[in-house]
Amino acid sequence: MEYLENIGRAAKSAATQRLSAHTRNTILLESAAALRENACAIIEANLRDVDEATQARMKESFIDRLTLDKRRINIMAEGLEAVATLDDPLGETSQMRSLPNGLMVGQRSVPLGVVCMIYEARPNVTADAYGLAFKSGNAVVLRGGKEALRSNLAIVTVLQDVLERNRLPRAMVQLITETSRDVTTALMKLNQYLDVLIPRGGEGLIRSVVENSTVPVIEAGAGNCHIFVDESADLEMAAAIVVNAKVQRPGVCNACEKLLVHRRLAEKFIPHICDALQENKVEIRGDEAVTSIMGRAVISAEQFDWSTEYLDYIIAIKVVDNISDAIAHIREYSTGHSETIVTESYGNAQRFLDEVDSAVVYVNASTRFTDGFEFGLGAEIGISTQKLHARGPMGLKALTSLKYVIYGSGQIRG
Amino acid sequence: MEYLENIGRAAKSAATQRLSAHTRNTILLESAAALRENACAIIEANLRDVDEATQARMKESFIDRLTLDKRRINIMAEGLEAVATLDDPLGETSQMRSLPNGLMVGQRSVPLGVVCMIYEARPNVTADAYGLAFKSGNAVVLRGGKEALRSNLAIVTVLQDVLERNRLPRAMVQLITETSRDVTTALMKLNQYLDVLIPRGGEGLIRSVVENSTVPVIEAGAGNCHIFVDESADLEMAAAIVVNAKVQRPGVCNACEKLLVHRRLAEKFIPHICDALQENKVEIRGDEAVTSIMGRAVISAEQFDWSTEYLDYIIAIKVVDNISDAIAHIREYSTGHSETIVTESYGNAQRFLDEVDSAVVYVNASTRFTDGFEFGLGAEIGISTQKLHARGPMGLKALTSLKYVIYGSGQIRG
Repeated sequence: MEYLENIGRAAKSAATQRLSAHTRNTILLESAAALRENACAIIEANLRDVDEATQARMKESFIDRLTLDKRRINIMAEGLEAVATLDDPLGETSQMRSLPNGLMVGQRSVPLGVVCMIYEARPNVTADAYGLAFKSGNAVVLRGGKEALRSNLAIVTVLQDVLERNRLPRAMVQLITETSRDVTTALMKLNQYLDVLIPRGGEGLIRSVVENSTVPVIEAGAGNCHIFVDESADLEMAAAIVVNAKVQRPGVCNACEKLLVHRRLAEKFIPHICDALQENKVEIRGDEAVTSIMGRAVISAEQFDWSTEYLDYIIAIKVVDNISDAIAHIREYSTGHSETIVTESYGNAQRFLDEVDSAVVYVNASTRFTDGFEFGLGAEIGISTQKLHARGPMGLKALTSLKYVIYGSGQIRG
Repeated sequence: MEYLENIGRAAKSAATQRLSAHTRNTILLESAAALRENACAIIEANLRDVDEATQARMKESFIDRLTLDKRRINIMAEGLEAVATLDDPLGETSQMRSLPNGLMVGQRSVPLGVVCMIYEARPNVTADAYGLAFKSGNAVVLRGGKEALRSNLAIVTVLQDVLERNRLPRAMVQLITETSRDVTTALMKLNQYLDVLIPRGGEGLIRSVVENSTVPVIEAGAGNCHIFVDESADLEMAAAIVVNAKVQRPGVCNACEKLLVHRRLAEKFIPHICDALQENKVEIRGDEAVTSIMGRAVISAEQFDWSTEYLDYIIAIKVVDNISDAIAHIREYSTGHSETIVTESYGNAQRFLDEVDSAVVYVNASTRFTDGFEFGLGAEIGISTQKLHARGPMGLKALTSLKYVIYGSGQIRG
């Protein structure tokens, strides 16, 4: 496909730039200023996207995510400024050592090269993704939602103009404007030019990328997060953690979706936690043990509940006999995102940390902390639920690679 | 496919084992002893594979790679013993730190989970792959070449018997015995059970895995390795490096395939290096500048030569105007494996290290050093030419992941 070939070739060529951290940060600050200066043009383009979405009777929440105003553009600009202040992820050479033959071998952090992001309707992702990819020395190819095409194009044009003013190739950031399914499928097979593909969005988008991409993918998958309240738990702490993890922001991937309660606590804790959750308008689906305690106050959980990420004011609760059962249940149904044990038992805390195979495993804390900003990464590209390359919250480092650099003095192999 | 479902489920269940380093090393040593003890049974099975391959008139080199004898089985056993002596790649928790809210956050090195390897006819890979995957705490699913099926099954049975004697699940190592194309294609889509797929073999196998796998792949790709002899090079050093990199072992991926020579050196260096290479029976293919110097002593290079990995006593030589041209040529044609500059210029050495985007970039040394043993990794799964997760020679660390472990005391998110 010639359209994508041209974009790929231009991106690969642009990715050969080796800009100092100072230059990269300056350009990020200039880009932030340019977004504010061009806010009117961006809002004008966005209005046309919003009009079209309104005419197409899209959901209100969708239109809200699509809409840009001065305040949201300012937040985008602040995002670029924040990335400019972060430590440079490039150029560190680690583990430099001398081999017996005198070769000096080290590993240098370098850009991945060309990063491609496929995402849905929120146009702010356009500036965020560019900021992180550019800071880490990559060229970036963006494929946003087609409903935000005019908004994204307006934003990318502002960013490209800043690059051009600095005598850098505009192709350091490119937007795919052909949004047909054929083009997107071909994009996922552009191995010659793309070094990584990062999908950001709903489960359907991520599944489609994992199934179709031959380019290496970093998967930011669903979060079916569990909290296990162990026999020895401090019940007030447990209730506070469960309520926080469920209701503080239910629509995100680190929200709690399942609660496992030790059988010896069930009679006492379940009525208490159900009250607290229901006060916060959470719908409760329980297994047999839960419904036998709570009666009609809760709904019976079905098999599909245990594997579902609700992203809503819903939780499913199950009673388990012991920590072994809790860990086995988590192994069976977890998506490998974040899980918590609430316990006062040293042994059970260590065992849970050892045996639960998720990106983030907690003792006595809310799953809601799984987040690049909370972890001090300064920025977040997403939360990886795969095990290769990057796992858990991904910061700038996830957009870099380590290449071996070797200083010799004529060594040959014997 | 029920056959693969059962294998996948058993592997995932076996991967939940958390064995101490001592236990893992003991089992590796027992496995080495068991291979030696059962050498006769393995050789008997191997004889039947070899007979069949002979009747099918397979190439002699193929039959040689397929054949096992006591010496080769002993080398396999020694490989397991060597892996047992390596440092444990698991259980280190790095970068443990306190967040402002008191959460203690660290990253612990853990197994990937289930590692699947697809490889070709050499049955020794069966024991090697198991040794590395088991040492790093993974369960392993092996799909070897169908010509080696009886040999591989004999080896895997010995390894499984050792596991069973130690009351561990035999499914920690499983061999795919259904070798049809359908089963292999389905294996590459077994995302529910496999955490990574590592192909080892020729370009066709690797391309097929990259194109068909939805499981994350670590690609150990081809090596079209370059040496650039810069204007200021020490010509004796350059000749020694080029000859070593080309002829010390031409059939491997870190052998030199292309030589770029600075134009100012061409008249002097090219006759010298051509003589030295031809003395070692290397066929030379040159660009116009080379053929105009050497006349009929060399063949004219065609366009395809610049992108071809010969894996043979063949080299293509090109004259370039300067280091910029050399780097541009490498960017265009390299497979991103290993490249060397020979130079006495400090600036050009640094520039080559900065701007060449390959897994291993050298100054003044043979490309043949790109190897896990040479780099001190103690073992090698392969040499990655992709940028995600692992790049260059891969040791045990490439078979591990980092999971976040978090110690809290009741923290909830505000």
